[in-house]
Amino acid sequence: MGVEGKTLDPVALTQLVSEITEEVLRMRSHASQAASAVGNNAFPANERSSAAELAARIDHTNLKPEATRDEIVQLCAEARAFRFFSVCVQPIWVSVAERELRGTQVAVCTVVGFPSGAVPVPVKCAEAELAIRKGARELDMVVPVGLLRQGELDYVKAEIAELAGICHRGDALLKVILETAALNDTEVALGCALARLAGADFVKTSTGFHPSGGATEDRVRLMRQVVGTDLGVKAAGGIRTAEAALGMMAAGASRIGASSSVGMMEELAR
Amino acid sequence: MGVEGKTLDPVALTQLVSEITEEVLRMRSHASQAASAVGNNAFPANERSSAAELAARIDHTNLKPEATRDEIVQLCAEARAFRFFSVCVQPIWVSVAERELRGTQVAVCTVVGFPSGAVPVPVKCAEAELAIRKGARELDMVVPVGLLRQGELDYVKAEIAELAGICHRGDALLKVILETAALNDTEVALGCALARLAGADFVKTSTGFHPSGGATEDRVRLMRQVVGTDLGVKAAGGIRTAEAALGMMAAGASRIGASSSVGMMEELAR
Repeated sequence: MGVEGKTLDPVALTQLVSEITEEVLRMRSHASQAASAVGNNAFPANERSSAAELAARIDHTNLKPEATRDEIVQLCAEARAFRFFSVCVQPIWVSVAERELRGTQVAVCTVVGFPSGAVPVPVKCAEAELAIRKGARELDMVVPVGLLRQGELDYVKAEIAELAGICHRGDALLKVILETAALNDTEVALGCALARLAGADFVKTSTGFHPSGGATEDRVRLMRQVVGTDLGVKAAGGIRTAEAALGMMAAGASRIGASSSVGMMEELAR
Repeated sequence: MGVEGKTLDPVALTQLVSEITEEVLRMRSHASQAASAVGNNAFPANERSSAAELAARIDHTNLKPEATRDEIVQLCAEARAFRFFSVCVQPIWVSVAERELRGTQVAVCTVVGFPSGAVPVPVKCAEAELAIRKGARELDMVVPVGLLRQGELDYVKAEIAELAGICHRGDALLKVILETAALNDTEVALGCALARLAGADFVKTSTGFHPSGGATEDRVRLMRQVVGTDLGVKAAGGIRTAEAALGMMAAGASRIGASSSVGMMEELAR
């Protein structure tokens, strides 16, 4: 967060990001020892078996377009019962979730520009401001994936910085979804570097809605290497078992997005 | 469009929609003769074989989150070459498409609240206004699918009416995406009735991004029956061949959304 507000000209930014990326890719080729150290730093091995520990890392998620009010109320009840970190819902449900969770420790998380990321910055800003006003404490925004792919790094960094400003002024955290299944390793590393430079609080693997797939341990490990311990790493998309969730945490994830979180808790209770 | 601006109280609206739905479902149980007459009305059988006729009905589409500027420019070049009705692109690409297509007959179409529909009305309105200002002439909005499913018909109708107002003041058309694969027949009929009452110009089957699937001929036939000849019907989602497109048009579609439109033209040229 030390670089928040610091501006770089395009050439310097590209240079810096390129250096970070090379450094990260060099690190990756080392022994897996280093990678697992980063992972363990995020989630110590001796806490792995605790359901409560896992619950406290879970964004309990229902982002289905066809979700009804009853299903959102149910999601909130489950989050209260299992003490999940948050519920993650579509923007139209923020008010409902805020009301259901008022007075509890469960936070309300929502999404911005989801799941395409391909909407103009003013639209994402309007969406973020309204969500915070309605009670969201964490916002998972999607980067403009195509612009990241084609190297429009200034645009991507400026957009993240603008959203981070809105979130932090509103006492909310910003997570940056990269949609890693649509990117190569270098693009993932670049996205993480930009999120870090722009003052985001988390990087996140996936929307869970891309046909190419969701989170993988390899990508989580890479993301953790780029962001170090400054930012959180959220693994989401296709994580359906406690075993998968714990694997992601061993790889460096500090937060898990999942819709089958109750099943995970039952799995660990057995 | 005669009912545009007319307001109904919730009870009267529900009653009216319920009557329309019953009428439609009654019609459906009749011989398929009636259905195919409605379909033919939209696209006469004797024009079916013409590639140019099909091209003029196609929204040539690239809504992939990871699409790059080069891919959008390519999409526009194809639309010019084959004289497709429009290109359909994500909101961040409207300016690029408008520039590429200026002075041609090809329209710029974009999406609103896509593909979840689960964002608040003010966000959809801001997105629509910005898109029109940047040159979009057709807007494909997604309804709040969950609210339609649970019968919050006033909300859905008011949202569509607000978007229709923005579009018509901006000299643009509004298409209403129902995401039919996530709905049952009654909900599809209700959605069409609401779109008609609220002054939309088209109803559209699918986003193409829902895991449950895209357009089907049965659903297109039902939609055409509800909207009559007042509104257009756009079939989109999983339509990959000219044969499939022509089947949709025989079922009542007056517009086709497709990303493999060039392949369709090559297919018809053989």
